[in-house]
Amino acid sequence: MNIQVLSLFPGMFEGVFQQSIMKKAQDKGAVTLGVTDFREFADNKRQVDDYPYGGGAGMVLKPEPVFRAAEAVTENRKPRIILMCPQGERFTQQKAEELAQEEELVFICGHYEGYDERIREHLVTDEISIGDFVLTGGELAAMTVIDSVVRLLPGVLGNAESPVSDSFSTGFLEHPHYTRPAEFRGLTVPEVLTGGNHAKIDAWREEQALKRTLERRPDLLEQATLTDTQKKLLEKLKSNLK
Amino acid sequence: MNIQVLSLFPGMFEGVFQQSIMKKAQDKGAVTLGVTDFREFADNKRQVDDYPYGGGAGMVLKPEPVFRAAEAVTENRKPRIILMCPQGERFTQQKAEELAQEEELVFICGHYEGYDERIREHLVTDEISIGDFVLTGGELAAMTVIDSVVRLLPGVLGNAESPVSDSFSTGFLEHPHYTRPAEFRGLTVPEVLTGGNHAKIDAWREEQALKRTLERRPDLLEQATLTDTQKKLLEKLKSNLK
Repeated sequence: MNIQVLSLFPGMFEGVFQQSIMKKAQDKGAVTLGVTDFREFADNKRQVDDYPYGGGAGMVLKPEPVFRAAEAVTENRKPRIILMCPQGERFTQQKAEELAQEEELVFICGHYEGYDERIREHLVTDEISIGDFVLTGGELAAMTVIDSVVRLLPGVLGNAESPVSDSFSTGFLEHPHYTRPAEFRGLTVPEVLTGGNHAKIDAWREEQALKRTLERRPDLLEQATLTDTQKKLLEKLKSNLK
Repeated sequence: MNIQVLSLFPGMFEGVFQQSIMKKAQDKGAVTLGVTDFREFADNKRQVDDYPYGGGAGMVLKPEPVFRAAEAVTENRKPRIILMCPQGERFTQQKAEELAQEEELVFICGHYEGYDERIREHLVTDEISIGDFVLTGGELAAMTVIDSVVRLLPGVLGNAESPVSDSFSTGFLEHPHYTRPAEFRGLTVPEVLTGGNHAKIDAWREEQALKRTLERRPDLLEQATLTDTQKKLLEKLKSNLK
């Protein structure tokens, strides 16, 4: 996959793109990552934003530098061009899986400013938001989406690194994990986990996962397909909560 | 504010913490940012994770290095200690405003692995998730939360940088923005915005903001307090949509 980012702060990406999974994915050839400063595509005064028509506070990103930078990185190809913005579609794991099927993605990151509407209407194919909170720019949002997409590309993750995905692939939150030491400052590991009875361990984990999901994210249970055992367990847990 | 991050990949933070608002906030003395590699607090073999009790794929972060690193950065103070994890409370702008009131915050970032449950139960005060998607680690999630908090600290943002916050402070999505040029590749700015009639401009913007919110985020309208004018406008927009 080829991922190109347009940003006024390319330096923000240096640490994240050169560490851990992102580095590994590039070393393995699974992805190429590039960041382009779209200020380089502005007119002679290097001006990328201007006052809004109709007045008001704040600055608005001009269309020309963004259009030109996008055209420079995509040449004649027609990849999806994603605008990171708080008004966009909420990012989910499903969207990550969809984007991981593409051969090329372009991300546009604004900073402080609004975007000229012509960018939205005539350049981008997707608008994505990572949540209902305000960031100083689209950069961290783009890195977040890129991380979640790149880890899905074939060959990027080893087995040891994959279990975190359980939270959304099973439809439940994960059961609690414990590792050594068996006792740490007087805090012990539940006996069932050290007892070696795997049927009991599985049953404990299933109940804990349901319990945690019920307590923290009951909305996930409404969408999940439950086995009969899980349904009974859930009724029991619900009556205990009352 | 003092913000300390515990991570196995401190290099990931370099670009983000040294650019733009984060750099400005530190230069102005509004925040100190530190990143500690908690591998330094592991035992002699520098081992930070281990196999899960009860079996299963994946590794689990051991309690000792995380507890010790948290104690080293907090000394005898009792700040909020935030675990970034997909099972946590969903991060929102309201949470950002709440965290911005604190004098000190500690963020714990895992990577690939699960966390030993004793970390959740006996060390952290908050568990936060930025959304229903899987990241390779908590680092990008922590940077996201930190960015949204730091920009709220007094003196960090200038006026020119603040309007992006409109999306969640008014309860509606923002109206479209336009800036120069008035015509770009045949694409023009709506006439109302260049006409100079400010009452008309305000009315257009209010209608556009409502329209966009209705189309993209009707859930926000359910929570918003609407004026009578806005209610009438909304009825009109709804009947147009049908």
